Amino acid sequence: MAKQPIIPFPDTASLDSENSAIIIIDQTLLPGELRLIALREQREIWDAIRQLKVRGAPAIGVTAAMGLYLAARRLPEDDEAGFFAALADARDYLATSRPTAVNLFWALDRMEATAKHHRGLPVAEIKEHLLGEALAIRDEDIAICEAIGQNGAALIKGGDGILTHCNAGRLAAVRYGTALAPLYKAHESGLGFKVYADETRPLLQGARLTAYELAASGIDVTLLCDNMAASLLASGRVQKVFVGCDRVASNGDACNKIGTLGLAILARHYGIPLYVCAPTPTMDLSLLSGEAIPIEERPGEEVTSMWYSTPMAPEGIGVYNPAFDVTPHELITAFVTQHGVIRPPFAQRLARLAKESG
Amino acid sequence: MAKQPIIPFPDTASLDSENSAIIIIDQTLLPGELRLIALREQREIWDAIRQLKVRGAPAIGVTAAMGLYLAARRLPEDDEAGFFAALADARDYLATSRPTAVNLFWALDRMEATAKHHRGLPVAEIKEHLLGEALAIRDEDIAICEAIGQNGAALIKGGDGILTHCNAGRLAAVRYGTALAPLYKAHESGLGFKVYADETRPLLQGARLTAYELAASGIDVTLLCDNMAASLLASGRVQKVFVGCDRVASNGDACNKIGTLGLAILARHYGIPLYVCAPTPTMDLSLLSGEAIPIEERPGEEVTSMWYSTPMAPEGIGVYNPAFDVTPHELITAFVTQHGVIRPPFAQRLARLAKESG
Repeated sequence: MAKQPIIPFPDTASLDSENSAIIIIDQTLLPGELRLIALREQREIWDAIRQLKVRGAPAIGVTAAMGLYLAARRLPEDDEAGFFAALADARDYLATSRPTAVNLFWALDRMEATAKHHRGLPVAEIKEHLLGEALAIRDEDIAICEAIGQNGAALIKGGDGILTHCNAGRLAAVRYGTALAPLYKAHESGLGFKVYADETRPLLQGARLTAYELAASGIDVTLLCDNMAASLLASGRVQKVFVGCDRVASNGDACNKIGTLGLAILARHYGIPLYVCAPTPTMDLSLLSGEAIPIEERPGEEVTSMWYSTPMAPEGIGVYNPAFDVTPHELITAFVTQHGVIRPPFAQRLARLAKESG
Repeated sequence: MAKQPIIPFPDTASLDSENSAIIIIDQTLLPGELRLIALREQREIWDAIRQLKVRGAPAIGVTAAMGLYLAARRLPEDDEAGFFAALADARDYLATSRPTAVNLFWALDRMEATAKHHRGLPVAEIKEHLLGEALAIRDEDIAICEAIGQNGAALIKGGDGILTHCNAGRLAAVRYGTALAPLYKAHESGLGFKVYADETRPLLQGARLTAYELAASGIDVTLLCDNMAASLLASGRVQKVFVGCDRVASNGDACNKIGTLGLAILARHYGIPLYVCAPTPTMDLSLLSGEAIPIEERPGEEVTSMWYSTPMAPEGIGVYNPAFDVTPHELITAFVTQHGVIRPPFAQRLARLAKESG
């Protein structure tokens, strides 16, 4: 079978050649325009995460790590105490950009721990270690996504119809993505299958990003509105559902883009397996269940006025706009991780995975 | 308890004072503008139904009946055979405007039967009978919706959270609506409750029409994206789901706006009752089950480009865009009809209802 090359995308987030700016694809401009922008100031980095110019749990983690390195880079090198205080401030600031994605906190904590680990060295050397750590987080993300792709591709059969929600693709990570990584790997191996992408209101990551990146890679993709998923599943055209996740609790409850919960209930109703693709940094085993996951509520204007030139709702109408929902573990068929496919019982197996993968 | 007056809307469809034009609210302009437009030519009437300027099964039926009268009105009165042939042509033409709403065919057939019943009278008198029949269909729609409102209001308790989908309100009928009629009647009686309106992609009838007409009537309404319904139901804020329908088969399978099926599965998952508000003309007992209901597929551009100034999906992407789905009868708690609330077993009870209501 012919290997289908994936059209070379730039990485979703990278450092420039002088390590003085983060280069990201501005995802708010897709699919109309593939534009790279440079982020230098902490406020720019915070805004880019907040405004979803860079989004997706893994990509947010990598961007935040690079962002904390950029903050450190500018600090004076003759005052260690001042350096650590300013670094803590920068960490706290970047941590407020999005409240739900655990990768954000995980990456920032890892950067701060690196700095503390090297306390006592000259500040200039600590900065070098922070750069190394940010790049390591990036490289690990690429390797993790590729491994998820390999593990998940084994679940796909030729001729499958696969439904996905939001964007957990290459644009949500540095490369490959999480939920879409198995599709890229299956496609590379020459397998034929059909993807259905929920548009994912309110911000249409499915229509703007998933449909874009899959089509650009030559994968057969059909777009649908979120409320058409039940009709599609009832029609027998879908054999598997692949989604990403933003945070997984120790019992396997998974927080992901709003709409995932509904999809999980529909998939269960029709007996279709739901696979949640989850790098281990997305797992927050300190949480007993999904009830402990804080859900970001975003402005109503995202629902009532985004991109529209004519009014799409009465002015001043109340809006319910949670950015995420929590899918209870009993609705999840399996987690696809970089270490393999994890099936129930999740509590024991996720704990074992955490122990084994350190 | 104080009676809350409903802000006087014009009827959704009416005849002008000379009975020479249909006056409709152009619903494609809502909620930005409440504009009345006059339809005179058959092509204008067909387009208005096709382009959803007038939509909702009851309103389509009334508009089609008035439209067939307008076609008859212009025909020469000295050629009975020619009159009936032209009337049949006009009927066939209007019947192609929307393929799913049974009220359309029901209203057109009723008009044609009226003409045939009076065959032998002077053509001028047949025209008068057609006018009378169109107005009777309108008056019956108003009375039916009011009765559905009374019957459904008895299901609502003070403090309830009520979720609805699409627009089965006053804008979908001549007055009151079907699914929203119980809300108007409960509100008139002074009951306090909270409504949640699914925006209903792709054409946003929930955001543009339901939120508009409920808010204009002083009813507490909150908008959400379709994919947020599961999160809302999981939160415990919804006690009842009220939806309309476009066609009901003899076993109780109900065809309604795309997304209703998914909502029905979610409501069942969370143990929340789903009420389908259905005037008896919506019931097509000639159909054994919902599988026999033809589902209108609409252009992909409705999903990918409607109202947007910036691209919301990659150019040329494939789109799945069915306008309706079928909810199996076992997911429906009860039908709210003008003759009362019908609970399972539906097959026997719908048949009895049809016999009793003639």
